[in-house]
Amino acid sequence: MVHKKITLIGSSTESFDAAADDAIDRAEDTLDNVKWAEVQEFGVEIANADGREYQAEVEVAFELQG
Amino acid sequence: MVHKKITLIGSSTESFDAAADDAIDRAEDTLDNVKWAEVQEFGVEIANADGREYQAEVEVAFELQG
Amino acid sequence: MVHKKITLIGSSTESFDAAADDAIDRAEDTLDNVKWAEVQEFGVEIANADGREYQAEVEVAFELQG
Amino acid sequence: MVHKKITLIGSSTESFDAAADDAIDRAEDTLDNVKWAEVQEFGVEIANADGREYQAEVEVAFELQG
Amino acid sequence: MVHKKITLIGSSTESFDAAADDAIDRAEDTLDNVKWAEVQEFGVEIANADGREYQAEVEVAFELQG
Amino acid sequence: MVHKKITLIGSSTESFDAAADDAIDRAEDTLDNVKWAEVQEFGVEIANADGREYQAEVEVAFELQG
Amino acid sequence: MVHKKITLIGSSTESFDAAADDAIDRAEDTLDNVKWAEVQEFGVEIANADGREYQAEVEVAFELQG
Amino acid sequence: MVHKKITLIGSSTESFDAAADDAIDRAEDTLDNVKWAEVQEFGVEIANADGREYQAEVEVAFELQG
Amino acid sequence: MVHKKITLIGSSTESFDAAADDAIDRAEDTLDNVKWAEVQEFGVEIANADGREYQAEVEVAFELQG
Amino acid sequence: MVHKKITLIGSSTESFDAAADDAIDRAEDTLDNVKWAEVQEFGVEIANADGREYQAEVEVAFELQG
Amino acid sequence: MVHKKITLIGSSTESFDAAADDAIDRAEDTLDNVKWAEVQEFGVEIANADGREYQAEVEVAFELQG
Amino acid sequence: MVHKKITLIGSSTESFDAAADDAIDRAEDTLDNVKWAEVQEFGVEIANADGREYQAEVEVAFELQG
Repeated sequence: MVHKKITLIGSSTESFDAAADDAIDRAEDTLDNVKWAEVQEFGVEIANADGREYQAEVEVAFELQG
Repeated sequence: MVHKKITLIGSSTESFDAAADDAIDRAEDTLDNVKWAEVQEFGVEIANADGREYQAEVEVAFELQG
Repeated sequence: MVHKKITLIGSSTESFDAAADDAIDRAEDTLDNVKWAEVQEFGVEIANADGREYQAEVEVAFELQG
Repeated sequence: MVHKKITLIGSSTESFDAAADDAIDRAEDTLDNVKWAEVQEFGVEIANADGREYQAEVEVAFELQG
Repeated sequence: MVHKKITLIGSSTESFDAAADDAIDRAEDTLDNVKWAEVQEFGVEIANADGREYQAEVEVAFELQG
Repeated sequence: MVHKKITLIGSSTESFDAAADDAIDRAEDTLDNVKWAEVQEFGVEIANADGREYQAEVEVAFELQG
Repeated sequence: MVHKKITLIGSSTESFDAAADDAIDRAEDTLDNVKWAEVQEFGVEIANADGREYQAEVEVAFELQG
Repeated sequence: MVHKKITLIGSSTESFDAAADDAIDRAEDTLDNVKWAEVQEFGVEIANADGREYQAEVEVAFELQG
Repeated sequence: MVHKKITLIGSSTESFDAAADDAIDRAEDTLDNVKWAEVQEFGVEIANADGREYQAEVEVAFELQG
Repeated sequence: MVHKKITLIGSSTESFDAAADDAIDRAEDTLDNVKWAEVQEFGVEIANADGREYQAEVEVAFELQG
Repeated sequence: MVHKKITLIGSSTESFDAAADDAIDRAEDTLDNVKWAEVQEFGVEIANADGREYQAEVEVAFELQG
Repeated sequence: MVHKKITLIGSSTESFDAAADDAIDRAEDTLDNVKWAEVQEFGVEIANADGREYQAEVEVAFELQG
């Protein structure tokens, strides 16, 4: 049983939780057997006029098929 | 005055905040003089059917009695 | 174009998100051209009677004027 | 000449060496020109009844074709 | 559900694997619900006459009872 | 909006800058919406007769399509 | 032979050395077979009127009995 | 004699060296007694049409006057 | 309540403790509401004829006024 | 009593343990009073036809003579 | 086959590349079988009148003879 | 101008300062042009009957002759 980890950066205008969920949602939409995620870093984009964008860089692990 | 730090991992189906609170609640239930906590890592368990479980590994510091 | 980063620690009785926002709010009140923020550490002050204080140490980057 | 690195987690009921080999075997089964691997972390799953599962998280590097 | 992590250093005259097992064995002898372990560091004591002693510093996680 | 980060190692007989560009060039040849890169490590291969090969390990981020 | 490491924070109004000794003294008062200590961090509390309090966070290792 | 360190991010369309110089130039324009700089991170902005922007985050140290 | 952290490097011909105090003294001379300090690094300048100069790089935190 | 640490990289076609032993053997062949070793990194060379070469980078400490 | 790594700091008034080359040149002048180098840190000395001195701390690996 | 760094561990029954000095003294006894030292780690040996032995692991830099 081998797992692979990929690094995704999700975003949300609401919260860090939602930003992490955004990245995990994407992983689950395109990969089977997603197992867990580890937060690498939280950040906030501030510059543009639409307010703050919360960002979560997460490593997502999924099981590779045999 | 000497403090001791222990490492606890709390969990929540709601949010990272609630997962950190879960660990701190446990510390306060069983220890006196809990003073502060430091988040070491946030993660998410995804695999099982009940949805996502947010996890927070925290170091909790409490004052040792003389 | 040169940016400068400073380190601020915001706090909130509600959540880690609000603590990070507290630090960014302060930066935007006193600096022009705030661009982004990076979370360095989350912590919780527990000791005093008023309940928990969530804290976020963030590096805030802003563009220096020519 | 450009290399790419991916992160795999191999497992074994025998040893850390075998867990690292498990990840490298998988890489060699599905990729050409695998060149080297770097161990990121060793862990052990203990909970379930079948005994211990040794795990090795490794970064595997392979050469991309032109 | 809250887990606690403790840090143990096992030793062996045979191998790093056996040193890690030594620490995990000790945890399982004295704690219920041991779930996983993470290797923090491998070392070797060389000085004394009896040959080399392999050492493994591991963090062992177990589930606290309600 | 979700970004993905991959790790590439570029090389050059000229300079560290050119080695980083080599990795980014490759990313841009095969991926859409490449946004930024972060240098992880610089190294130099010295052994073989053709002189020094400068190497740059970079994380390259690109936006995933919806 | 298995060792366990715990994390203590000692304090002193005199010096970092005395703060580290404070933590080790406490360990020796309550544990048998204390073997060594590793300094994790030095800090200074400044805010209150009584002057500076030097602090030393140390990991203390002791041998577990069979 | 006390030094202070600040964190600046310089940029250049040419090279990492020039990006580091950009940050140091800015420090020397506005501060006296700049003594040394330490590179914290190199990155590249790629997204916009004008080509690549090399960036250097540097800590710059200068001596405070008595 | 927002705190700011700045990085100072103090020095002393006597000891690391005195070098850290030197940086904190400077902070207290020029800032209100200095609260705590964290040692980042200790070093020693050896080269010149006047003997050794002990150095302490410390992050000093102070409360910003509303 | 002063110790010195040097960094050696041992190799083996068999295992990580043997690779670490390879480095320590070399240290003991050429130095007196070798005391302990700390593993810095494990890696595997894969590219060439002779199979895998396990590598262990270790810091080896030995006591300097007066 | 055992390699040894040493740490050298090269310097240049021109560029970081030249500073790294300076360290590698020195290693090749005095050691056989130099194989690769890893950059640990880039810095710039600014203080003195002759302009900037770029510095590169590199670990250089060479093969030990049997 | 190329510098080399070596890693020494000094010891003292008195203090961390004295342990660092012990390592630097040794370097100055056997090397020319010792320039600076960086503390890597402080520890304390506790086990044996003679009381505590303070230890300082330091990197010592010296200038190589042309």
